[in-house]
Amino acid sequence: MFSTCLENVRARTPLVHSITNYVTVNDVANILLACGGSPIMSDDIGEVEEIASICGGVNINIGTLSQRTILAMFAAGKRANALSRPVLLDPVGAGASALRTRTAQKLTEEVRFTAIRGNISEIKALVAGGGSTKGVDADVADTVTEESLDEAVAFAKAAAVRYGAIMAITGAIDLVADAGTCYVIRNGRAEMGRITGTGCQLSGLLTAYLVANPGGALEAAAAAVTAMGLAGELGWGNMAPTDGNATYRNRIIDAIYRMDGAALEGGARYEVR
Amino acid sequence: MFSTCLENVRARTPLVHSITNYVTVNDVANILLACGGSPIMSDDIGEVEEIASICGGVNINIGTLSQRTILAMFAAGKRANALSRPVLLDPVGAGASALRTRTAQKLTEEVRFTAIRGNISEIKALVAGGGSTKGVDADVADTVTEESLDEAVAFAKAAAVRYGAIMAITGAIDLVADAGTCYVIRNGRAEMGRITGTGCQLSGLLTAYLVANPGGALEAAAAAVTAMGLAGELGWGNMAPTDGNATYRNRIIDAIYRMDGAALEGGARYEVR
Amino acid sequence: MFSTCLENVRARTPLVHSITNYVTVNDVANILLACGGSPIMSDDIGEVEEIASICGGVNINIGTLSQRTILAMFAAGKRANALSRPVLLDPVGAGASALRTRTAQKLTEEVRFTAIRGNISEIKALVAGGGSTKGVDADVADTVTEESLDEAVAFAKAAAVRYGAIMAITGAIDLVADAGTCYVIRNGRAEMGRITGTGCQLSGLLTAYLVANPGGALEAAAAAVTAMGLAGELGWGNMAPTDGNATYRNRIIDAIYRMDGAALEGGARYEVR
Repeated sequence: MFSTCLENVRARTPLVHSITNYVTVNDVANILLACGGSPIMSDDIGEVEEIASICGGVNINIGTLSQRTILAMFAAGKRANALSRPVLLDPVGAGASALRTRTAQKLTEEVRFTAIRGNISEIKALVAGGGSTKGVDADVADTVTEESLDEAVAFAKAAAVRYGAIMAITGAIDLVADAGTCYVIRNGRAEMGRITGTGCQLSGLLTAYLVANPGGALEAAAAAVTAMGLAGELGWGNMAPTDGNATYRNRIIDAIYRMDGAALEGGARYEVR
Repeated sequence: MFSTCLENVRARTPLVHSITNYVTVNDVANILLACGGSPIMSDDIGEVEEIASICGGVNINIGTLSQRTILAMFAAGKRANALSRPVLLDPVGAGASALRTRTAQKLTEEVRFTAIRGNISEIKALVAGGGSTKGVDADVADTVTEESLDEAVAFAKAAAVRYGAIMAITGAIDLVADAGTCYVIRNGRAEMGRITGTGCQLSGLLTAYLVANPGGALEAAAAAVTAMGLAGELGWGNMAPTDGNATYRNRIIDAIYRMDGAALEGGARYEVR
Repeated sequence: MFSTCLENVRARTPLVHSITNYVTVNDVANILLACGGSPIMSDDIGEVEEIASICGGVNINIGTLSQRTILAMFAAGKRANALSRPVLLDPVGAGASALRTRTAQKLTEEVRFTAIRGNISEIKALVAGGGSTKGVDADVADTVTEESLDEAVAFAKAAAVRYGAIMAITGAIDLVADAGTCYVIRNGRAEMGRITGTGCQLSGLLTAYLVANPGGALEAAAAAVTAMGLAGELGWGNMAPTDGNATYRNRIIDAIYRMDGAALEGGARYEVR
């Protein structure tokens, strides 16, 4: 039940260590607080292992990676592995530079990720070792549509096998897959792409759901992705005619803050393949 | 009079140099502008002494400390000391890692702080050289309640003696103490803890109040803490049923922007011990 | 036509590489998305040349410069020059420290900027190699008024000659000049100065306009500056009595999101000298 996943987050206040980009970090912290989690950001090699140790899980996002923070990503990820705690990778902009693609790949080689979340272009670049990523947004040619859905589901499952991780590939249609099962989620709105960091926010949220639901990681990941999409719908419903993307950003986090299990269960639109 | 403290900030436009974390830095800048101050952020060792020199005071926050910015914190703090300007320490997450605890302690040894602001767990970790800090939020066991208030007031005054600084220990009940006097402030709302950075914002605000009120640092600090708590109450009063923590964040800064001396004086709820 | 400039941004989705400060970076990303552009932030020397290569233009902002990011600024600027793509400089706080003034000057010597945007104090510091900048806000003595306008227009044109760049000098009255022509723009509101980063946001927006309007850089720059000022007016019109600078920040970005060519054309208040 998605509702149970959400309620576990509220009941257990998962502490999430994020090594994330400085563009959207404030929104990541606020959405973690909104869902019932507790955020801590830390990226110095002198403390990340210790911080990872006191946290329930680690969220690694390469959105503004640097030589300095890359070191911290490996150290924190490995420590979380050693402690058997969930670790998530958000390979922001993989395909946009060799540094991003290589770093994301090397992270998947040296750290065992519980989940990897990105748009389809980023995940393709991660798998292929390069790609046509147009900056941090998905390439139109890659977009998951009803026509390409079967192929995309197969791709997600294959990637899940390859990385031994839950794959969350988000876009107009969201896919959350392990080796055998794929949730196809149709919540969300296109306008979410006009806000910076809805993907980063989801990665933070998803990490909190993984930490608070240790027994059912796939369902927890699907619940988090659904919650984010539903928040996009609910938030849009609260928009005034003069509101734009800045206000929409707040309304989505607000919707996560107000969402309970029943609302999530009632608003979820997905199928399992 | 708290009203005079507030009005001095509006009249004098204190320029505040912040070396602060990248999570909440935007909100710190906006609340400084909201209260009537002027923010400048700078953390490179190549300029922090010069920036500290042109500013009225320095706000040092270790929320996302790194080897690079730690150097800048010491240099800026010492320069402000040499110029007899107010310096504030916000030991974010002291107790969560040895790096944070040690850095905060070493700062108190090498820089003379006008004020130190943190939650009770952070201040206890600072004093004890370790602690049970759960990330960046106060540990429940540490919370200042009506029952533990006498003890907490004595702790705050003792810390004030030890550091030669005003101690601002904020939470459900806020304490602002020097060696002999402690303001016990009951403004604020529990929901403020569901927004990232209300503490960081208060540290910025408090530094501005110290700069603009050189003759009465303790009262200025108490006025700033009260203003923040009152803004939390006023901001909550402007919330719609679908609003959550993202909108609440804006409403609090908005309330600081709109607050005048009479509102602060009328809304303040405190006693002096 | 300013309307065409705006519509070109919406039609062409310019990808803008920003090396900018961590204070206002989220707002820069959101205003780029609001206007129809696409943001990518990247400041590591290991990838900035590659990121600059896939982008339409580069926005360089020294607001929280460090030794590390300064290297990236030079590398990205030079690469954009080599590819004949627009590059903008925002010399935040030039005059406030020798590091800022020298870095901004050296950037203008080694990188050919398409446009330079700052407040009058920053631009004077850039030209003079020092100055009286009070932090990151313009010095009152420097303010462009109706009385000092002729002199300021001449100054802007002379700076445009010196740097071979469009100069956008913004404040109560905005000037956008090349060697021979100066747009004098009277849109905007004084309250915009009470929000952190409206200047940084404009620099991002302006870069997007330059990228999307390769044939008419001066008009595009003037259109962007006018759009920002008009958004400040429209956003203010949507303020409730309890709203302050935090909400105003969102309303301005929202206004950019909603603005179409007709609204910009109809609301623009400028003369050409």
